[in-house]
Amino acid sequence: MSSAPPLNHQAPPSALRLAPPLAEPLADTRRRSPAEEARTLVASSTLGTLSTLSEDGHPWGSVVSYATIGEGVPVLMLSTLAEHGRNLALDQRVSLVVSESANGRDPLDSGRVTLAGRAERARDAEEEAAARAAYVEAVPAASVFGSFGDFSLWLLRVERVRWVGGFGRMDSCDAAAYAAVEPDPVAPATEYAVTHLNEDHADVLLLMAQRLAGYTDATTARCDRADRYGLDLRIGTPRGPAAARVAFTEPIVAPDGLRAASVELAQRARQT
Amino acid sequence: MSSAPPLNHQAPPSALRLAPPLAEPLADTRRRSPAEEARTLVASSTLGTLSTLSEDGHPWGSVVSYATIGEGVPVLMLSTLAEHGRNLALDQRVSLVVSESANGRDPLDSGRVTLAGRAERARDAEEEAAARAAYVEAVPAASVFGSFGDFSLWLLRVERVRWVGGFGRMDSCDAAAYAAVEPDPVAPATEYAVTHLNEDHADVLLLMAQRLAGYTDATTARCDRADRYGLDLRIGTPRGPAAARVAFTEPIVAPDGLRAASVELAQRARQT
Repeated sequence: MSSAPPLNHQAPPSALRLAPPLAEPLADTRRRSPAEEARTLVASSTLGTLSTLSEDGHPWGSVVSYATIGEGVPVLMLSTLAEHGRNLALDQRVSLVVSESANGRDPLDSGRVTLAGRAERARDAEEEAAARAAYVEAVPAASVFGSFGDFSLWLLRVERVRWVGGFGRMDSCDAAAYAAVEPDPVAPATEYAVTHLNEDHADVLLLMAQRLAGYTDATTARCDRADRYGLDLRIGTPRGPAAARVAFTEPIVAPDGLRAASVELAQRARQT
Repeated sequence: MSSAPPLNHQAPPSALRLAPPLAEPLADTRRRSPAEEARTLVASSTLGTLSTLSEDGHPWGSVVSYATIGEGVPVLMLSTLAEHGRNLALDQRVSLVVSESANGRDPLDSGRVTLAGRAERARDAEEEAAARAAYVEAVPAASVFGSFGDFSLWLLRVERVRWVGGFGRMDSCDAAAYAAVEPDPVAPATEYAVTHLNEDHADVLLLMAQRLAGYTDATTARCDRADRYGLDLRIGTPRGPAAARVAFTEPIVAPDGLRAASVELAQRARQT
């Protein structure tokens, strides 16, 4: 087996081909960066899978609850009664996987992120207090077990990030990029918004595909995902399936801004 | 930091104390073995988190779909485009974490299992064909990507198993024990059964607590879990909370046997 990986799927081109647009897209195609995807996913959950190293160097996975402080720093509270706690005492190299709830979608086509780095103790009493408060807020049971002598706080200092959004949507980023961005403020509202767009505004999504995304022959359009920058559309054409991005005019800054931005996008599609 | 772990939570006794029964329990307390818990959990899902070793020895977690063949052997299909696929080509030590769907319960009080072992190629063409067929059944998209040249099949030869059922419910088993048992046949039916028992038969659960579990002063009883061997009850008493196991007379062998076994247990409680 060669250690030089191929750069692309070794697949027949027909397996992955999507129809191109017929006209120049009018809408911008801006989307979240991999760092923003990672920060958003990490902020959306308090449950992950931690990989540590057993004493013999074997990789060891375990389920953990976590909180987040500062620039996306995960906080863990682990017992030395558990293998992961004993592992960390010996070797602080870890990774943490956080997965999006698939909610009926193909889980392989749903988001997940791996944060690789080192577990460290808090730098000072102030950081320790902030980490403990965040953990107890995220994991209420910790108000009991957090005082047990076998539990201690660890902060995951992120060194490397791998985000996978689903089939064909994946990228990596470094610690600086991960720390520099913020979680998408509209993320908690997108599941409802996507359902509402698909159930009640399919006609508008089709107009967006035809007039803003350049798919003048589109016959169907569904919204796959929404975020602060725009919508991902899945489009049907007589030439086969297609996918397109239609961005809002301005990124949304408020948690409740998705409706107004979608209405503005619909108006642009109608008036084009 | 000492590498000798404590044997118990370093906690005030009041934090973990449950009330003891007042009378000798009449029902057996048989329950699934850790190996059965692990096999049942692994059979219940096709999604897990794989821990592998990166080239520099850092533990690396990633989300994978899996199938199961034979005696609970997980089958993976991984691409060398992905870090886990490249890692496995260099070092075959892995662990796979499978988590129960928490369904609104505290995820730290829900089941998960870690299978540690080695990823290997199929032993022969027959095992390869069985593994591929099982994988495509579990992961329909593999009928497309399974033929891509960058994907290959791996079988996880389990060496060590750690099961965590929730707070205070955890144990380990070895490869032989894991291979020797079968998944609980009633597992897919238990969520509905537990809801039904709690919503419609709280009176019967209370009788079970009072007459079969020895909690003669029980004032409330809820069913936390059901399996082929019996029910886990959470009991309220004037002396504080308690937990008890009430086993069926015989283990259930058929997937639809939970109703009849529960009725029989209820009759025993009424007639005692």
